[in-house]
Formats: sequence, C-alpha cells, structure tokens
Amino acid sequence: MSEDVIERATIDADGWTCPAPLRDSPNIVLGHGAGGALSADLVQHLFLPGFGAAAANDLGDSAVLPVAGGRVALSTDSYVVKPVFFPGGDIGDLAVNGTVNDLAMSGARPQFLSTAFIVEEGTPLSELSRVARSMGAAAERAGVQLVTGDTKVVDSGSGDGIFVNTAGIGTVAEGVHIRPDRARPGDVVLVSGEIGLHGIAVLSSREGVEFGTAVRSDTAPLNGLVADVLATGADVRVLRDPTRGGLAASINEIAQGSGVGIAVDEGAIPVPAGVRDACGLLGLDPMFVANEGKLVAVVAEEDADRVLQAMRAHELGTHAGVIGRCVPDHPGAMVARTGLGATRVVDLPVGEHLPRIC
Amino acid sequence: MSEDVIERATIDADGWTCPAPLRDSPNIVLGHGAGGALSADLVQHLFLPGFGAAAANDLGDSAVLPVAGGRVALSTDSYVVKPVFFPGGDIGDLAVNGTVNDLAMSGARPQFLSTAFIVEEGTPLSELSRVARSMGAAAERAGVQLVTGDTKVVDSGSGDGIFVNTAGIGTVAEGVHIRPDRARPGDVVLVSGEIGLHGIAVLSSREGVEFGTAVRSDTAPLNGLVADVLATGADVRVLRDPTRGGLAASINEIAQGSGVGIAVDEGAIPVPAGVRDACGLLGLDPMFVANEGKLVAVVAEEDADRVLQAMRAHELGTHAGVIGRCVPDHPGAMVARTGLGATRVVDLPVGEHLPRIC
Repeated sequence: MSEDVIERATIDADGWTCPAPLRDSPNIVLGHGAGGALSADLVQHLFLPGFGAAAANDLGDSAVLPVAGGRVALSTDSYVVKPVFFPGGDIGDLAVNGTVNDLAMSGARPQFLSTAFIVEEGTPLSELSRVARSMGAAAERAGVQLVTGDTKVVDSGSGDGIFVNTAGIGTVAEGVHIRPDRARPGDVVLVSGEIGLHGIAVLSSREGVEFGTAVRSDTAPLNGLVADVLATGADVRVLRDPTRGGLAASINEIAQGSGVGIAVDEGAIPVPAGVRDACGLLGLDPMFVANEGKLVAVVAEEDADRVLQAMRAHELGTHAGVIGRCVPDHPGAMVARTGLGATRVVDLPVGEHLPRIC
Repeated sequence: MSEDVIERATIDADGWTCPAPLRDSPNIVLGHGAGGALSADLVQHLFLPGFGAAAANDLGDSAVLPVAGGRVALSTDSYVVKPVFFPGGDIGDLAVNGTVNDLAMSGARPQFLSTAFIVEEGTPLSELSRVARSMGAAAERAGVQLVTGDTKVVDSGSGDGIFVNTAGIGTVAEGVHIRPDRARPGDVVLVSGEIGLHGIAVLSSREGVEFGTAVRSDTAPLNGLVADVLATGADVRVLRDPTRGGLAASINEIAQGSGVGIAVDEGAIPVPAGVRDACGLLGLDPMFVANEGKLVAVVAEEDADRVLQAMRAHELGTHAGVIGRCVPDHPGAMVARTGLGATRVVDLPVGEHLPRIC
C-alpha cells in the first residue's frame, strides 16, 4: 500500500480516519457491494460506527423487532439529492427525516428504519462515512433506530455518488385517524413554519448558482411536533409534509383527496426573505419549492387555536400560522387570494421545477 | 404530438400500450419524479395497473396496515442488476422475491412490501411498465401486498435505467427462533436445490457473454417452502438465502455467526450442468455464484429427515439435499471435502466475482 493511498484515505474535513480494514482503497470499489468480506468491513467499520447509538443491532439482512399489535405504518423514500452535501444538511439526515416525517404524517409514531445505499464506484469512503454519521445523528434526534441495511455498488458512470433509501415502520395509536380524504368544508389549514428553505438551499449549492442571502435547508424530524399536536386532543384530519412540489402540491392533493376546495391567503404564508429573493431572481413561486421540515395540517375549526398554540410552543413550529380554509366551492382545487385582493387557481405542478431536490 | 412519438410509445414486445396521460413522451422525463401531476400519472396509469391485484391501495407516501403484535421483521434490499431483463426473470420479480426471502429467512411470514424506484431520465416507459407487471405477478405469487411507493428520476447519465428498492414487513410466529447464531455442532446443513443459476443467467445475458446451455435465473419466493419446513415442527436453527457471494458466503456467515465449523461435502451440492459448464469456462466456483430462489437450512440432527422430506415435497425444493454438518473443529470456518477426498478451506469471498448480479 503506497503512502499516497494512506494519506488520501485519512484526509477528511470532518476528521474521519479510514479504519485499517477499509484502507486498501480510500474509495468505494465494486467489492464493497458484493456481499463478501469487503461488504462486511463496510458495515463493521463504517456504517455501525457512523450510525452510533442509533444502530440497534448488527444491521443484518433482516431485523426482528418488538412491535405493538394494531395499526402499523410502513413508508419508504429514496433520496438522490444533488449535491449530497448542502447548506443545512445532507442526503443522510434528509433520508432519515424524510421517512420519519412520512410516518408522522400518517399519525404513526416512527420507531424503526431500514437503510439501503446505492453507491457509485470511486465514491470516497470519507463521504459515505460522513453520510452515515448524519444518519446516526438524525435517527438519534428523531428517536428511531436503524435496524437493517443493504449496500449495492454500481460501476463508475452508472450512478451519481450516493443514493440512499430508507423505509420505516411505526405504530398508529388508537383514535388517531389522519388521512388525505378527511378534510371537510369549514376545516382550517395551518402550516408549521417558513416555506421554501430546503429547495432554495439545495439549488443555491448547485451548479454555481448562489444568492446573496444564506438559505439553509429546514430538514428536521416532525414526529415530536406531531406528537405535541395530537396530545391536544384535536381532531387532526390531514397532515402532509410539503416536500417535492411544495405547499402547492400538498394542498392540491388534500383538496383532491377529500373532494373539498381549499382557499389560501397568500399573505399569511410565511416566506423568509432569502427564499423570496431567490424565487424572485429565478422566477419561481415559493409555494412550489420543497420543504423538509414543515407540515400542513387540516384540523376541525374548533380545534384550530389549540393546534396553533401547540405548534408555536414547539421549536420546529415557532412560525406556525393559519393559512387557509376548506370550502365547499371548487372541490378538488386550491385557490389563493393574492396580496392585491385577486384570487388565482394554484394547480398541481405538472413536472419538474427543481430536479433532484431530495 | 408527432406520429413518431405515438408509434414509439405503443411499441412494446409485451403488448403494453402507453396510456394517454403518459403519452407526451414514451420515456421517463425528470418531471415523473417531481411529485406533481406527472408523478401522479405514473402511479395511476403505470404502477397501479402494473402491480394489479397485489397493489393494496393508492400507493401513497405511507400505508397504515393491520399487523399482529409481537415480533415483526423488517428487511430491505436495493436492486441494481444489469441487465434489467435476464433469462428467467427481471429486476421486478427479483426485487419482490429478494425481500420476501430475506423476511422468510428470519422466520417471518412476509405480508407487506414498499417499492421505491430510481429511474434514469430517458428510460422507456414500456420497460418500467414491464418491471411493474413483474413485481405485481411476483407479489401475487408470494402472497404479499405492495402498499406504498416512491419514484425518483435522475438525469441521464446519473443512473443506469431502473434501480428498485423494496422493504418489507412480516410477523414472526411464537416459538420460531431462526438466527445466524443458533447453529450447534452436530446440526445438519441442507440446501433446497440446484445452485448457481441466477448468477450464471445474468452473466450469460450480459456484455455478449453466452454459453451453449440455456441457464435461467431461479428467482422465486421461498416463504411457502419455509412455511412447509416450519410446519414439520423441526427445530430450524438458521436459514439463509445464498444470494451475493453464493453458498460459500452464506455458510461462512453461519459458521462465523454461530462460532461453529461447517464441513461440506462438495459432491453432495447439486450443481446443474449448465452452471458447471459456464463456471468451468469462466474459472468460477459454483459455490460463489449467486442464487435467488434457494435456501440453506441448519437444523437439529434429529429433524434433518423430516425437513428434507418437507423440502422435497415443495415445488421449489425437489432437488433439496443434505450437504454438510456443523462440527466443533475449525470454528468460524467452512471446509469442503472435494471429490478426490481432500479437504479445503472455503473462505468468505473478499470482493466481487460478478458485479451487479442483483
């Protein structure tokens, strides 16, 4: 082994030292995905230490877990965000928070996550280690365990660095019935905070596009916020995390799923200055930009106040606000009242505004 | 829309006609992964019809499922097999069977699967549809439901056609304790059938390598076979499906996990002629070649006969046989007795013999 290899293997901005069993190459080779000794090394010396306390066991092919009977939520997402590291987060915490949030949006208490990596040959081990450590930290923050995993390696040019899939399970408590078809006219629509941060943060770190204001991704686990909202005893009809397609996609999906109209007051939607500036420059509407740590809640009118208070009392909901209402008119459609007093239909986005945002 | 586009969109070896909402392009575009209307079209008009009866609901971000309390197994695998279609199967049935089998190897009864796709821009919709239909058929055969999903699209050159992840859950019955650390000296090692078929089938369809004999992948769901084995009441100590790394990797892992030696009789391992020929030509050892429809079982000596009978009575176990025994010597190591009466240590493969085999 040349000095050069050792040196490259141990250079890491975060101080990661490539452990001996992985040192033959500082980069991922095809053998790391072959299910043999190199794969075992990767689990033993990179994933397990990276996941830390959040790794529940030996990350075998399958994990047998204690789960309460009743209703169990299952959710999955793959992450292909480009670049892998961006202001405010990386693909690792995104992958944990994203699946935690999908589970939370169904009213489940997220408990166990699987992790699966598709890594391109030549990817630095130090990058993969940094991602694993982010996943461990995010899982610890969210209170979930990483219990089983898989790694595949594709030849150089057949992937793009690191892709991560997570799937997760959690139990849904009795009496909780949160579904996209439960919104009713009169219900109140709330958002838990400022929108557009994730999409703009990723865009700003990509392909030389930079803005004056530093915008950081809002990636965060929403299960604690949801638990606080449910603890109020409010009748929470629908929860959605407005990721791809932004607030507009989530609200359209709720309108369509429940067959109600949703009227939104544009002026009530919290849009931070950095997002507003960047969107102005790029001709984007903040309502279509992805979030990774926000939720939209539809609740019974009489419960709106206590839900708002519960959100504002949580560190991830300090900017929460009421942004609209379900109406009997224009079922299936979202209508926004603009600052000038006019109204416009906000349609489900057709295609891609910002590719590979998550 | 040009005639040409319509024509390309409707040409499909399997007779798939690209439905109208997807017809603007016969290929995947970035917008199909954006979470907007195109993503919804893909779910509605490609995945749901493709999955057929195996699709349990609307494949939303999260599924809430009835699960019995107690022990629940969670497993995940990503599939990057190249080519996507190969003799005897494709990435779709591989992805369903693989996760079904991982669950079955932990003694669980597989019930619900998530599906997540990472598709390269430009991939023909007809290919994705064919994969979806394979998944539906495989899920139906295995008796599992496809309940939630995700699709991401990466730009051309950042992926390689279709990558699929599945995760799955299933419940483990009381009294079933199948774990890699339960093998004991004296236990008998069985394999459920002929080895090496999947690896050679994929290799034979790749990069112009062809052999005289047609070898087809053995991809199949093993949950039924496992159920029949467990129904005998035998003390099944360990089950493994010898995928990547083949029989050698699985038996090494059992030896290491349980701290026993495992002595295998090479002559007792069923190797079909096509696999033997191809391996001879390529200098491969069949024991290292991947399988996707076989299992290795370690059972208490007194139970070996009835387990063997149960296997042979199942359509996927007709060639089952006893291939070795756990011994107190050389703990952690696998030793094979060759045809000439000599013995050799069969080590865990270090790296990659056949990349992207699953």
